Amino acid sequence: MDAISVIRAKRDRQELTGEQIDWVIDAYTRGVVADEQMSALAMAVYLNGMTRAEISRWTAAMIASGERMDFGALDRPTADKHSTGGVGDKITLPLAPLVAACGAAVPQLSGRGLGHTGGTLDKLESIHGWRASLTNAEMMNVLQDVGSVICAAGEGLAPADKRLYALRDVTGTVESLPLIASSIMSKKIAEGTGALVLDVKAGSGAFMKNVEDARELAATMVGLGQDHGVRTVALLTDMNTPLGLTAGNALEVRESVEVLAGGGPADVVELTVALAREMLDAAGLPDADPAKALADGSAMDVWRRMVTAQGGDADAELPTAREHHVVKADTSGVVTRLDAYAIGLAAWRLGAGRARKEDPVQAGAGVELHARPGDHITAGTPLLTLHTDTPEAFAYAEQALTDAWDITDSPSYEPTPLILDRIG
Amino acid sequence: MDAISVIRAKRDRQELTGEQIDWVIDAYTRGVVADEQMSALAMAVYLNGMTRAEISRWTAAMIASGERMDFGALDRPTADKHSTGGVGDKITLPLAPLVAACGAAVPQLSGRGLGHTGGTLDKLESIHGWRASLTNAEMMNVLQDVGSVICAAGEGLAPADKRLYALRDVTGTVESLPLIASSIMSKKIAEGTGALVLDVKAGSGAFMKNVEDARELAATMVGLGQDHGVRTVALLTDMNTPLGLTAGNALEVRESVEVLAGGGPADVVELTVALAREMLDAAGLPDADPAKALADGSAMDVWRRMVTAQGGDADAELPTAREHHVVKADTSGVVTRLDAYAIGLAAWRLGAGRARKEDPVQAGAGVELHARPGDHITAGTPLLTLHTDTPEAFAYAEQALTDAWDITDSPSYEPTPLILDRIG
Repeated sequence: MDAISVIRAKRDRQELTGEQIDWVIDAYTRGVVADEQMSALAMAVYLNGMTRAEISRWTAAMIASGERMDFGALDRPTADKHSTGGVGDKITLPLAPLVAACGAAVPQLSGRGLGHTGGTLDKLESIHGWRASLTNAEMMNVLQDVGSVICAAGEGLAPADKRLYALRDVTGTVESLPLIASSIMSKKIAEGTGALVLDVKAGSGAFMKNVEDARELAATMVGLGQDHGVRTVALLTDMNTPLGLTAGNALEVRESVEVLAGGGPADVVELTVALAREMLDAAGLPDADPAKALADGSAMDVWRRMVTAQGGDADAELPTAREHHVVKADTSGVVTRLDAYAIGLAAWRLGAGRARKEDPVQAGAGVELHARPGDHITAGTPLLTLHTDTPEAFAYAEQALTDAWDITDSPSYEPTPLILDRIG
Repeated sequence: MDAISVIRAKRDRQELTGEQIDWVIDAYTRGVVADEQMSALAMAVYLNGMTRAEISRWTAAMIASGERMDFGALDRPTADKHSTGGVGDKITLPLAPLVAACGAAVPQLSGRGLGHTGGTLDKLESIHGWRASLTNAEMMNVLQDVGSVICAAGEGLAPADKRLYALRDVTGTVESLPLIASSIMSKKIAEGTGALVLDVKAGSGAFMKNVEDARELAATMVGLGQDHGVRTVALLTDMNTPLGLTAGNALEVRESVEVLAGGGPADVVELTVALAREMLDAAGLPDADPAKALADGSAMDVWRRMVTAQGGDADAELPTAREHHVVKADTSGVVTRLDAYAIGLAAWRLGAGRARKEDPVQAGAGVELHARPGDHITAGTPLLTLHTDTPEAFAYAEQALTDAWDITDSPSYEPTPLILDRIG
């Protein structure tokens, strides 16, 4: 077996054999296959695709490249959630403690943001003292004691994926369905959860711009989960509009705490409860009532214990940005579009996101929405508030917002549903 | 400008702009574009192709990555030849001195063999004392004094191509028409010749297995030469059968000397004279008579002076292999096929070729043919003689020859012509 014959096979539109896939992933992990060889293979996969059988074997080989966690020692079933990423997507923050409050254990290994979408760890780090990095033993202790934990994935999980993901980022091979699906699922399966719910987003603020691509990605990932004995379900959800009324780290933590307190924007509550129901159902707890756990404070209780267990001060004031700037509605009418990508880009430019992995983020920066599609608004009243520590960013952020909304005289306007479909 | 946007453009089947091509080749030469990025781009080019305009700009950018030689100070026109490579292709050895004897200067920068095709420098190095590496000044002196020189290309010519060629070799992106054409032509144009004749081979022993692919490659390269002001012509020639009666380094030198002495196999003489006529014509010497220069010894005279000028002993005995093994005809009849690839592979396995750039070659190893397609042969008489210093290679070489010939009772058999077409 050698790298060139594997590259040639995919280049010539052949289906790779299981042996070829196992060999190339293992050899890449060991450094026997070089980055320049793997990037040629990734481009061939990008352009010629992979069959379901190839994707499944590729995923298995990436899992086998590292350790696989085991939560068998816990006294309750595990459930995990993954979102393909969107603007204002703070759902993990209320969801993990909510599902734990309903009886499942939630080992939520998360990442940082890159580009216009935020990262769960960046958001939580706006809480004074909170730590993203835990040892495996610490993680297990928090999970056992509190029921949920949100932390950074360890280095030992799917190392082949870590290396390949960094390579794809610099070689124009990110947007490939087989490579996206196997990357997400290898990490999630290696994490050892028994049940997995995927939130696959479609729209301007998502990775997948159209619903059919998102549906294909969702179906592929659900199949991969089932291949590996993980009960997997996907919700297909709209990401043409930001989730909730905030995009930015501390802003989103504040909104998440509102949801845990029984309030918060309707769409965030709707998606949090829907995902919680799916997770609990997949974990074998179909009778749990997540809406009740939000209303009676039990989810909030788990949240406070989880934050505290990871060094955070659940009572501390959240940081706010030094400067703010109000963007007003230019006309009166019904908001019929509020573009997720434009809002995400503005939040990024205000300092909430990063362009490179090593860049810092501002805890207080971001965009606050004062109206959502379907709301009536009057000319001259606030539509958005922009927050930043670096006021020279306002003009740059406003450029991103040039064509970010429509306000029309359209009394019959109906916002599109948030949850578009369920695949499982 | 950045590497990812250039890769994405080609990945998405766009035509690269001149600025994108200039930037990516220059940045690759400077190490700003990494190997893993260039290999992803090479695979995208392999799979999505390039337009003629892109190939022309790509070639120009590779020429611009290094120095360009200038033979304007010589008192005669220059002419150069390039073969896409085949089995038994020793044509450069008699051709360069022959064309010089007819009045043109021939600066023939050549390479070493890899795989089943031999390399001109490897062949000449079987002459005692002969040196492939000359400084630019030494090369110019030999060219001025003798009229022809055959030596290794300097490091300064098209360095982008040198780096890309090595990268393609390990990433499954060798067999791409735009990359082959631009690689060959950037080197040849940087060498500064005024006239160039291409011998583009088609058949089992060639890079291009079928005539139509070879024709397209030839037409592309002729166009590239003309774009850069080099008078360029291509002959399309058959490579289903080895050229002449020998494949192997010293064996081919011996056959070349026979041709220079006015003898030698008819096909080698035919192609040598045809290429010489094209070179002389393109160099503005249409009245020169290469057949006469072979017959009257003037080409042989240039050969001896050229070998001597590069340190070689033109009178030394050529090395012979320590062991030989005769392969006999298994039946009587007309030879209707003698497969170039099989013979080339056998010669390689006997020690005449190398698998990796750094491997040595045996001077005496190779295959001698005692019959060619169209010849009658009697069962039990010698068809081939195998030569090697390592007799354990005989069995391995014979495996390559399992299906290497057809001998049939077919009185009407006509061998295919050697020269299939002329493009220019």
